Amino acid sequence: MSFKIGLLGLGTVGTGTAEILLSPDGRHPLVQELEVYRVGVRDLSKPRDVQLSKEILTTDLEAIATDPEVDIVVELLGGLEPARSLILKAIAHGKHVVTANKAVISRFAEEIYDAANEKGVYVMLEAAVGGGIPIIQPLKQTLGVNRIQAITGIVNGTTNYILTRMQNEGVDFADVLADAQKLGYAEADPTADVEGFDAADKIAILASLAFGGRIKLEEVYHEGITKVGAADIAYAEKLGFVIKLLAVAKQMSVKSNEPEQLQVRVHPTLVPKQHPLASVSGVYNAIFVEGDPIGQVMFYGRGAGAGPTASAVVSDILNIASILKTSVLPQPPTPILHPLLACTHQHYCQIAPMEELVTRFYARFLTNDNPGVIGHLGTAFGNHGVSLESVVQTGFRGDLAEIVVVTHDVREGNFRQALAEIRALEAVDSIASLLRVL
Amino acid sequence: MSFKIGLLGLGTVGTGTAEILLSPDGRHPLVQELEVYRVGVRDLSKPRDVQLSKEILTTDLEAIATDPEVDIVVELLGGLEPARSLILKAIAHGKHVVTANKAVISRFAEEIYDAANEKGVYVMLEAAVGGGIPIIQPLKQTLGVNRIQAITGIVNGTTNYILTRMQNEGVDFADVLADAQKLGYAEADPTADVEGFDAADKIAILASLAFGGRIKLEEVYHEGITKVGAADIAYAEKLGFVIKLLAVAKQMSVKSNEPEQLQVRVHPTLVPKQHPLASVSGVYNAIFVEGDPIGQVMFYGRGAGAGPTASAVVSDILNIASILKTSVLPQPPTPILHPLLACTHQHYCQIAPMEELVTRFYARFLTNDNPGVIGHLGTAFGNHGVSLESVVQTGFRGDLAEIVVVTHDVREGNFRQALAEIRALEAVDSIASLLRVL
Repeated sequence: MSFKIGLLGLGTVGTGTAEILLSPDGRHPLVQELEVYRVGVRDLSKPRDVQLSKEILTTDLEAIATDPEVDIVVELLGGLEPARSLILKAIAHGKHVVTANKAVISRFAEEIYDAANEKGVYVMLEAAVGGGIPIIQPLKQTLGVNRIQAITGIVNGTTNYILTRMQNEGVDFADVLADAQKLGYAEADPTADVEGFDAADKIAILASLAFGGRIKLEEVYHEGITKVGAADIAYAEKLGFVIKLLAVAKQMSVKSNEPEQLQVRVHPTLVPKQHPLASVSGVYNAIFVEGDPIGQVMFYGRGAGAGPTASAVVSDILNIASILKTSVLPQPPTPILHPLLACTHQHYCQIAPMEELVTRFYARFLTNDNPGVIGHLGTAFGNHGVSLESVVQTGFRGDLAEIVVVTHDVREGNFRQALAEIRALEAVDSIASLLRVL
Repeated sequence: MSFKIGLLGLGTVGTGTAEILLSPDGRHPLVQELEVYRVGVRDLSKPRDVQLSKEILTTDLEAIATDPEVDIVVELLGGLEPARSLILKAIAHGKHVVTANKAVISRFAEEIYDAANEKGVYVMLEAAVGGGIPIIQPLKQTLGVNRIQAITGIVNGTTNYILTRMQNEGVDFADVLADAQKLGYAEADPTADVEGFDAADKIAILASLAFGGRIKLEEVYHEGITKVGAADIAYAEKLGFVIKLLAVAKQMSVKSNEPEQLQVRVHPTLVPKQHPLASVSGVYNAIFVEGDPIGQVMFYGRGAGAGPTASAVVSDILNIASILKTSVLPQPPTPILHPLLACTHQHYCQIAPMEELVTRFYARFLTNDNPGVIGHLGTAFGNHGVSLESVVQTGFRGDLAEIVVVTHDVREGNFRQALAEIRALEAVDSIASLLRVL
């Protein structure tokens, strides 16, 4: 018995995937039964790092998605189109789909999973979050018996690499970015990574799996790392924190008569040094999950790269092949899909507005060197019920005094009102930065 | 459709398991279809923390294992007997089995899996290693496409708790043990934990899954933490290490004409502080996996306790129930089992003798205060090809000078020969400790 794989895309991850499939020795025996049947590429003449016979390659991607011989379509094109259309076409033709495409899944999950459920096929996406780190399958298969309380992840390698270097070298964002681009750790257009779009896609996917509902991507708050300064990293260090771009999905504590709400958000965050996420450095990713009754678990590994991502892709293929070997063939109109591998969410999770978030804040103010200024700040915070953990005048920037404030837990809406009052104070020049604290 | 669970044992983990099964709200919808059908206990009159109707409880454990109504038998008795016999009886009666029993699985895997494969039933054991940490399922389902190179784990919470406290408080093993026993972190008879037996059971199971072969438990080298002194922890700290009880399974690099060999071993180890395992403290466990092409991944969480372990147990039940919902019923004589969930190893892995291990060593010598002694040590090491990274006379213990040596990579057999020569030196009083370095 062999399973015919149609691969869409032969870039970095596609090549890594083909390499695993073509070298089954020393891997799970079932890998031998996976056949690279067709590979869709843009340019047939381009030299390739992987040895594939010419008859396998084609530029007609749609022909792969609709080929009656193909069992599993593996979409590794990236981007929204033609990836989305090809996935839908493959599903319509009764093919199982494996994808690493977080952008498509986070935007079109409803359309894709409705189609897949109707057709009785699987759409698997282990590679879409955390590269090689097993996180999607554990969330579906092992952690699902828990009531998940929170997922907190470092899910973007580019920004973690930049923040780690800023911390180690004491330099500013812009200095590291240029170098990261030269080294291939950041794209020529780094917007998706550094502005938090990529992390937002990923936390939307994780939240959906962990909390069993669909997520509207436009409701996911995200804020990037471009405004994090070397000064903030240095002050955080002194206060016992490192700054990480965290993607968070968390159950709000609500009163029994109120509907359940989730926070789903991405932003740079001060992480206490003793927290397991604090020591996740460079291009590594980690996802920290809290649930009842499991407590805290963390998954750590390389969040990108050909090898790790291809490992995740092939593990999805292997899971589908295993099901196909042992299952009743799903028959429309009432296909029976494996309850832990299929996605059958029907409702949308309710996402709480950011004003309702309760968290600690770190803020850095530049003020005139006025003896009363700390008192003014304290009064303004007090007027809005914001209680302060520490207020330190750290020194001067030019003529201006620099004051760093860390609050106790506060409702974000109240904190923002206090900031509005502070901005209006004559002694205050500017709010140089504003970060949340884990 | 509902699945009838027969629970053997209602201790800590059994109670935790029943609690999850009886409170499906907010968990995976399939948990609702799992019915606690019978629970086997030793004493019917004992007060219980979980509400179960009296008709469910019985002291006749064998009746549960053979009850035609029961779909899945969950063995949470611990110990070798009657656990082993009940597992075999359940299998003989066509029941799927979930167990948290590392001792039984590490000793009787062949007997149990041969019986299970013949009957076409699953024996699942997520809870046997790492408590709630998903590690068994990721090894089977996600990491199997990799060629695994090494697994390095902190898999015993008791010893990690003791070592962490020794490090934080600068005290000796015996001082912490007594307190750990009082607090319930160590058993009244702590042998299985502190002598490394428990970790040996667990690494035998992990090695078998990672390297696709059976492991003879008696070939697993193990050494406990009773000889680790406060002094060693202090010197390790100065040298940039922490001491952890590591369980290691590693592919040996062999010449192409030699058969593949594994190292499988448990011993206290100096771990570089920047290694992800170094910051795993207290009762937490972590398993660090290296493979091709995934690179390094780590799984972290609580290695014991009712909640985490019960989470793992119920996730196994859920996986079996999912398969039962979607699969062709396995029909003897040719049952088709899910290739990623069944265990079909036939051969035994070849385990390398410890003499062939190549590693760095840390050794602490007590010697007479003789100006030539470091020279004598160096000569003895040199005679056996042991090259030294550092030799430091750290001070005095009573009349004796204390010398700490760290070697470069060396074949353990050569190192042992050098030690024999050193022991015979007149200036050497004793070898106070001897530890491997990661």
